[in-house]
Amino acid sequence: MTKTYRIAAIPGDGIGKEVLPVGQRVIDLVAQKHNFTVDWTEFDWSCERYHDTGRMMPEDGIEQMKAFDSIYLGAVGFPGVPDHVSLWGLLIPLRRELDQYANVRPVRLLKGINSPLAGRGADDIDMIIVRENVEGEYSEIGGRVYQGTEHEAAIQESILTRRGTDRIMDYAFNVAKTRKRKHVSSATKSNGIIHTMPFWDERFAAAAERHPGIGTAQFHIDIMTANFVLHPDWFDVVVASNLFGDILSDLGPAVAGSIGIAPSANINPEGKYPSMFEPVHGSAPDIAGKGVANPVAAVWTAAMMLEHLGEPGAAAEIERAIETSLERADTKTRDLGGTADTAGSEAAILAALS
Amino acid sequence: MTKTYRIAAIPGDGIGKEVLPVGQRVIDLVAQKHNFTVDWTEFDWSCERYHDTGRMMPEDGIEQMKAFDSIYLGAVGFPGVPDHVSLWGLLIPLRRELDQYANVRPVRLLKGINSPLAGRGADDIDMIIVRENVEGEYSEIGGRVYQGTEHEAAIQESILTRRGTDRIMDYAFNVAKTRKRKHVSSATKSNGIIHTMPFWDERFAAAAERHPGIGTAQFHIDIMTANFVLHPDWFDVVVASNLFGDILSDLGPAVAGSIGIAPSANINPEGKYPSMFEPVHGSAPDIAGKGVANPVAAVWTAAMMLEHLGEPGAAAEIERAIETSLERADTKTRDLGGTADTAGSEAAILAALS
Ligand SMILES: CC(C)[C@H](C(=O)O)[C@@H](O)C(=O)O
Ligand SMILES: CC(C)[C@H](C(=O)O)[C@@H](O)C(=O)O
Repeated sequence: MTKTYRIAAIPGDGIGKEVLPVGQRVIDLVAQKHNFTVDWTEFDWSCERYHDTGRMMPEDGIEQMKAFDSIYLGAVGFPGVPDHVSLWGLLIPLRRELDQYANVRPVRLLKGINSPLAGRGADDIDMIIVRENVEGEYSEIGGRVYQGTEHEAAIQESILTRRGTDRIMDYAFNVAKTRKRKHVSSATKSNGIIHTMPFWDERFAAAAERHPGIGTAQFHIDIMTANFVLHPDWFDVVVASNLFGDILSDLGPAVAGSIGIAPSANINPEGKYPSMFEPVHGSAPDIAGKGVANPVAAVWTAAMMLEHLGEPGAAAEIERAIETSLERADTKTRDLGGTADTAGSEAAILAALS
Repeated sequence: MTKTYRIAAIPGDGIGKEVLPVGQRVIDLVAQKHNFTVDWTEFDWSCERYHDTGRMMPEDGIEQMKAFDSIYLGAVGFPGVPDHVSLWGLLIPLRRELDQYANVRPVRLLKGINSPLAGRGADDIDMIIVRENVEGEYSEIGGRVYQGTEHEAAIQESILTRRGTDRIMDYAFNVAKTRKRKHVSSATKSNGIIHTMPFWDERFAAAAERHPGIGTAQFHIDIMTANFVLHPDWFDVVVASNLFGDILSDLGPAVAGSIGIAPSANINPEGKYPSMFEPVHGSAPDIAGKGVANPVAAVWTAAMMLEHLGEPGAAAEIERAIETSLERADTKTRDLGGTADTAGSEAAILAALS
């Protein structure tokens, strides 16, 4: 008997439409070997759709997604469409209404990739950033008083709940259990006045008690960013609030030289709703349509999705194929110092898989 | 006629007590050459004082400071004294009640210092981070509901006012006018939901109109941290909110290899109150009392203070003396790969000055 996964594919805008199909073909190829199939359903949700219809996705878009085992997203954003439309019309509601509260971003220094740091090799950078994805600093509460006058003020409220904080801590500690080093570092800022962060620290300490056998450390966010540069080897799993996680999950890939190839997963750990998998990169309108986009982030994201769906063998094969494709200049794209276009990079990955 | 500056010296705790006197001796030496004198008044405000008296500083401490031309602070903090005591009992009230709303942190890759980045030299990293220092994410407003129960939530309010935002923008643009590249980059996060940041962007745009001839750029904080690592040469003056500035001003020195030697100034630009000058490093209780602390941050901070007081020639001489002391291993301290102790580093700086 063959398992079938129902996956919603949302290529989105710009290079999203070029790299997502690569990931789909990679998945279809490994599926044969691993005895499963994927039933793909395509959605044209995008800024283009917004342009034509006034909406990034239909009103019942979230409901439609609930029928799938997972969501595979390219990138959204197009010049002329403001961020609050493209993000708040699609990306953020999906993350929130499907309760994808764990944003997971692995950061590894892969062979064939140059780190901007001097003297660092593949053994020095291997971490997973677990970002709280639905509450915290990104809350809807806030606004302006005396707008447009000299007395104007803008207010933003950050809200951490015990439920929301405990569940992301549990997620991070559970990830640590699957890792060799079994260590979690918490990003905080409890030495300033920020009221939410001593609470974050308390919940981190409580989680450490619930999960014995896992090493822990905590760093204020300012010095943690410094340590990402000075001592990336200190970090295994990093747990962070929504904003701190957003920052660390761009800084981490930058340190590992992988900002163009970084994958990410928006996970609903209970499996009540589908999880969503998207490359960290954006729609890159400047290079869209030229056939030169780097498909590695989309393919690495595909591997994360298969692992989540319960196909770790297929996922590991894809990751190895990516590494093989990065070893030679003529099979990786120009942003990585290679000479390949999108098709050349795809061909190398597919070849490594067969 | 000789000018006399009245300066309050607060060595504080740990290595603060070892490095501040070095800075004072350096100042006294250049003062002779530049025809000014310093009238030092010492204050024992510290965790030790807290231990003995229950207060970091006397009740009228802020009032006492108002009589001085500037404040020269070492470091505060000691194991066993919680951060909220040492910081909120001294550092933060000084910054706030003396309206030191501009926190200024130069980041330069000095000759003799190794950057953790591959292939970067002294020309690649030369920026000034201007951090809003009294409002924003560090507000007193916030707290808990249902404390200690499973329904607990913690709330923090971030507040940006137009007055507070405009004046830090003006400060940053004015700094840019004194620089060769005449460029300001703003750290923002207006693509998420954070209500304060579109406001920040508006005030940045308004400031750019008030200060024609200054180049501008803006980056979301996540990608800005990545660009500090990937393209530090892009940045000249960086203007940031309290929290974002806190993060960037640890990350910047890390990238420049100078986290142990970074200076900072808390400026009240109107000169209504004294400004305060402090090394970025902390009290380092682990190495305190051993005579090995690196005095360069305190000395560099002394140069910033003299520049602010109106002695740019003396300041420039100190900076050159620092660079000379960093050129040889036997005149810089161990944290910089050298072999000198505190006294050796001081001797080299004083020698370079005479
Ligand atoms: C100690 C702490 C409150 C402080 C801050 O966040 O302002 C420090 O990190 C700094 O940058 O001066
Ligand atoms: C686009 C933006 C709203 C988003 C975020 O801050 O969450 C992005 O930076 C990310 O990390 O996915």
